[in-house]
Amino acid sequence: MKLDGTPHYTLPAIHDPSTGSYISDSFAIAVYLDATYPSAPLIFPHGTQGLQASFESAFAPEVKGLLPIIYPIIMSNLNESSVNYLKAVNSKTAGEPIPNAEVVLAKTEQDLWKVHGWYENASRSRGDKGPFLLGEVVSWADFVVCAQFLCWRTVLGPDTKEWKYMEKWNAGKWGTLVENLGKYQGVH
Amino acid sequence: MKLDGTPHYTLPAIHDPSTGSYISDSFAIAVYLDATYPSAPLIFPHGTQGLQASFESAFAPEVKGLLPIIYPIIMSNLNESSVNYLKAVNSKTAGEPIPNAEVVLAKTEQDLWKVHGWYENASRSRGDKGPFLLGEVVSWADFVVCAQFLCWRTVLGPDTKEWKYMEKWNAGKWGTLVENLGKYQGVH
Repeated sequence: MKLDGTPHYTLPAIHDPSTGSYISDSFAIAVYLDATYPSAPLIFPHGTQGLQASFESAFAPEVKGLLPIIYPIIMSNLNESSVNYLKAVNSKTAGEPIPNAEVVLAKTEQDLWKVHGWYENASRSRGDKGPFLLGEVVSWADFVVCAQFLCWRTVLGPDTKEWKYMEKWNAGKWGTLVENLGKYQGVH
Repeated sequence: MKLDGTPHYTLPAIHDPSTGSYISDSFAIAVYLDATYPSAPLIFPHGTQGLQASFESAFAPEVKGLLPIIYPIIMSNLNESSVNYLKAVNSKTAGEPIPNAEVVLAKTEQDLWKVHGWYENASRSRGDKGPFLLGEVVSWADFVVCAQFLCWRTVLGPDTKEWKYMEKWNAGKWGTLVENLGKYQGVH
């Protein structure tokens, strides 16, 4: 329900028949799953919910540079009413000239060295080679990063030269991460 | 040593006589202390170094709004050569008109509700009342937040109405945090 009383439609959302719960919003769903199924691997190990929530704020600025490339492709795949809706809510982005893709891609890889540093410094100071932000254990932050790259792969297409380039960014860190998380990707 | 071969003077820095190590940079010092004294309480519990490093990027935008208030006060307390140095390296900030303090303070409290949310949502989803970002256990992120408020308290003065106001920001969250971390503050 929205503030004005009209129904609020949003994705992602889940219905858990074993508890009768309906939950929307990725983070809230993850919190629900950890609380309801504590014996499964946790999305927020060691009570890291707060740190993991802050990670999204830290990560977003490093990838937003790619939006002017990605956004027009998304728009070109939508039907008219979706396009009109997105144009209305994103007036700032719509209609701006599309910048040089090569320059934008190279700049985004530069920005992402910062995120790479969070992974690599952590791994070095822990003395392990775990591919995830917490080391050997996957957690929310890795899903955030992976989801961003999967979005780009889907929008650009897995066989495009742009995606082949991005897979190798930052010493191949993100291509490997997407691969490592492959077992969590699927339609059931 | 800087890239140009001249000596690099910086603070903070530590010398640990028991290992003969000299370390500078807060994060590197914390990593060193955890690695060298693993039986003491850890600054990065549960291998959270990477998440904690990203926290600083998430936190910084929420507090940078106060710089135009704080910066002129810092400048007014420095000697001439320090003032000239800071003016040279911060050309963008220097000389700008000082904005209305009340407006800036109120805006910064608004921005900090986001950080408050990271703490409170985490605490709620863990089902605990721990005052720290990881719950009952203090860690790097809490020191980052606390250090920012201690900087403001020192610059503004602990008896000013500005500090008395900030202590109560966001349901008193930061005043309480500074108090909870009091035992770690001291000159030895």
